[in-house]
Amino acid sequence: MSTPPIGHNAAIAALRDVFGDRLSTSDAVREQHGRGEDYFPLAPPDAVAFALTTEEVSAAHRICAEFGLPIVPFGTGTSLEGHVSAVEGGLSIDLSRMNEVLEVNGEDSDCRVQAGVTRKQLNEYLRDTGLFFPIDPGADASLGGMAATGASGTNAVRYGTMSENVLGLTVVMHDGEIVETGGRARKSSAGYDLTRLFVGSEGTLCTITEVRLKLYGIPESIASAVCQFSSLEAAVDTVTLTMQSGVPVARIELLDDTQMDACIRYSDLEDFEVRPTLFFEFHGSPAGTAEQAETVQDIAAELGGSAFRWTQSQEERNKLWQARHDVYYACMALRPGCRAWSTDVCVPISRLAECLIETRRDVDETGLVAPIVGHVGDGNFHCGIVIDPDDPEEMATAQAFNKRLVARALAMGGTCTGEHGVGQGKIDSVEAERGEAVDVMRALKLALDPANRMNPGKVIRL
Amino acid sequence: MSTPPIGHNAAIAALRDVFGDRLSTSDAVREQHGRGEDYFPLAPPDAVAFALTTEEVSAAHRICAEFGLPIVPFGTGTSLEGHVSAVEGGLSIDLSRMNEVLEVNGEDSDCRVQAGVTRKQLNEYLRDTGLFFPIDPGADASLGGMAATGASGTNAVRYGTMSENVLGLTVVMHDGEIVETGGRARKSSAGYDLTRLFVGSEGTLCTITEVRLKLYGIPESIASAVCQFSSLEAAVDTVTLTMQSGVPVARIELLDDTQMDACIRYSDLEDFEVRPTLFFEFHGSPAGTAEQAETVQDIAAELGGSAFRWTQSQEERNKLWQARHDVYYACMALRPGCRAWSTDVCVPISRLAECLIETRRDVDETGLVAPIVGHVGDGNFHCGIVIDPDDPEEMATAQAFNKRLVARALAMGGTCTGEHGVGQGKIDSVEAERGEAVDVMRALKLALDPANRMNPGKVIRL
Repeated sequence: MSTPPIGHNAAIAALRDVFGDRLSTSDAVREQHGRGEDYFPLAPPDAVAFALTTEEVSAAHRICAEFGLPIVPFGTGTSLEGHVSAVEGGLSIDLSRMNEVLEVNGEDSDCRVQAGVTRKQLNEYLRDTGLFFPIDPGADASLGGMAATGASGTNAVRYGTMSENVLGLTVVMHDGEIVETGGRARKSSAGYDLTRLFVGSEGTLCTITEVRLKLYGIPESIASAVCQFSSLEAAVDTVTLTMQSGVPVARIELLDDTQMDACIRYSDLEDFEVRPTLFFEFHGSPAGTAEQAETVQDIAAELGGSAFRWTQSQEERNKLWQARHDVYYACMALRPGCRAWSTDVCVPISRLAECLIETRRDVDETGLVAPIVGHVGDGNFHCGIVIDPDDPEEMATAQAFNKRLVARALAMGGTCTGEHGVGQGKIDSVEAERGEAVDVMRALKLALDPANRMNPGKVIRL
Repeated sequence: MSTPPIGHNAAIAALRDVFGDRLSTSDAVREQHGRGEDYFPLAPPDAVAFALTTEEVSAAHRICAEFGLPIVPFGTGTSLEGHVSAVEGGLSIDLSRMNEVLEVNGEDSDCRVQAGVTRKQLNEYLRDTGLFFPIDPGADASLGGMAATGASGTNAVRYGTMSENVLGLTVVMHDGEIVETGGRARKSSAGYDLTRLFVGSEGTLCTITEVRLKLYGIPESIASAVCQFSSLEAAVDTVTLTMQSGVPVARIELLDDTQMDACIRYSDLEDFEVRPTLFFEFHGSPAGTAEQAETVQDIAAELGGSAFRWTQSQEERNKLWQARHDVYYACMALRPGCRAWSTDVCVPISRLAECLIETRRDVDETGLVAPIVGHVGDGNFHCGIVIDPDDPEEMATAQAFNKRLVARALAMGGTCTGEHGVGQGKIDSVEAERGEAVDVMRALKLALDPANRMNPGKVIRL
């Protein structure tokens, strides 16, 4: 590992004055903060500061400004496109110890949390309130990280993404200025929407330290169902017709046969066949969920789906959805010691069948191990390429495959990333997708971070 | 009216080369573009260009850049806070003739329209597709204007605001560069969310020329109901309990007794009493709407509301909601020749009753004519102050009242504007509400419009 450049010693000393033994320069801690759950090379920061308050983050920013150090905000390190690698060194600000739920307003269904609170921790905290927070990326990510990445997950088809569910943020700008965006009102036209600009900005514009979120009443009735199909086409056609029917389905997830195989083994799922499978969830009143489920069951039956298999007990439901959330780990278990590279295109639903089928064929032709799983109600799906990053030939094959996949999605009016974000991995893809808009993004970045010290090397090329 | 400054003649000549007789410098046309439906003094532009294409708007921007002319985008002129007044002169770009629906993708429930298409025009166009666009400010505003203002309306409680429903924009930057934001994918994390930054930017960052929108299936069943109450408290408590019950009500609108009086007279509503009144609408399946309505009816009955009065025929429903949309005009009809000044605070729902009751008392003490109407499911309400702008004492009373109202809302965790935007009228309020965040907004504005020629004098003070 590289030695911090000259001048950093003074910076480290100044940071130690603020953080004491919560500042680490040990190899182990730096390595742990050197990448996320991705396929990028390790790039450790020069130091890691474990912050407890917004004011400490502000102090760290001021010191980094003084010494010209890059800043990389770090949550749970579960991002997938090289977001948290310290590619230019500098300070990793670890927010995981800022894990307090600051307020819950039950009457207004909102809450405010420190950035390090994870989604599971929040829902555990809310358990007795009758409320929940629905956004659920696979990992038990921090809510600050989820806001920074613009995460979504299996519930987005009904509840939206982080963008629709963050009411406001507390952030620290590059120079240490603390700024609050948004607020408790459910809607506001009071000036530019900084909240939504910062959601998905991946630490390149500011460090998020607190998040104000919308909450939802736990539905009176929740019904889950699984249905298996003889072909990918039939499964996707079921999704398309379901979406067009206007049924307010809460979750509709597709696992292809390879993914089912991996999940059956990793999560001990019983009595499932290795076939394309849809997982459904319906939220509402008892009458409403029954009505929704009936409509979808009829559609699936028309397309040759197996009878719905119901999972009405909460325990069985949790097991099923945990299996769904664990697909990343199930993929990695296919080739122990490898990393998973999760692709992330999203296309208009009318093009989804075509895109999935072409992609499945492409995977098969490459010989890559790449199960497919999708938030198909949104047109978003992932290939979990299980890869040995030290095998240059395999990496080249995967890179070429992903390039074709992104081009395919863009040609269909889609996007190169539905929810994982840009990080280091999608910078070129965003340029291909957004064109002139990248010039505007660049102007915004330079306006808010003129020295390019906020998570440099991510999102855009300056 | 003032004479255009020297140098403008060459600009006018260059603009005339592009627009021919679609460029006007007549007093009548300039006056018509000199203000919206607001209480601000007339401030006509030097000229008005009626654009037909994005390329023409781009050409106009380039000429204005060359000659240093301010640019004021203009849709239907129905904004309420002085948004379209040409306070520094310059060119008003009228987009009303860009009124083509460019594409409708039924399978994906999305469409793309030119900025001048109005919400009613779009819904008329969609009539046979089974789809509709739900966002409905009072006026039949242009969709470009609605995006620019971050409009919402009576359906926001279920369908969200423009921010949740714009998938992408075509915009022209200050220097004439044409930029597309967003796209057809339902979600994307591909770089900074420019779409949402430009929604609500009120022409101060760019001119919006095309809008890509989400559409929704027309619900299988729509049920409307009206319920009258003996007190404002009882009506608001019904709203609060309804929202907390989790019923997915589509619309829930409050009209106070003064407003009901105005509406009964202006819209010939029959068999209503002059009492605080709630208008409801439920969307869903027949079983679903019946279930929703029953729950709400029970809540209202508990709080002493009159029996629900149902309006199941589409004609009767339209009449009722048209009356709701016409409250602005109903208010103005109370004092012919006056203007209406519509306040716009939004508070957390738990504080709504308190805020409304204090505000009603405040109105009564001032002696102003100011009926109250509210999108109360969102915590947003308007006092329609009917005012003679030429009476300085009355204006001062209204200003002082609005200042107290905003302070009251902010003290309750609310916002100074739920949906009307900032324009000229709320600049100070936004500074009070957003604090340091205004510095960030200022940096963004200067990054994207360094010479401050895009709708100067609106949103923020540079």
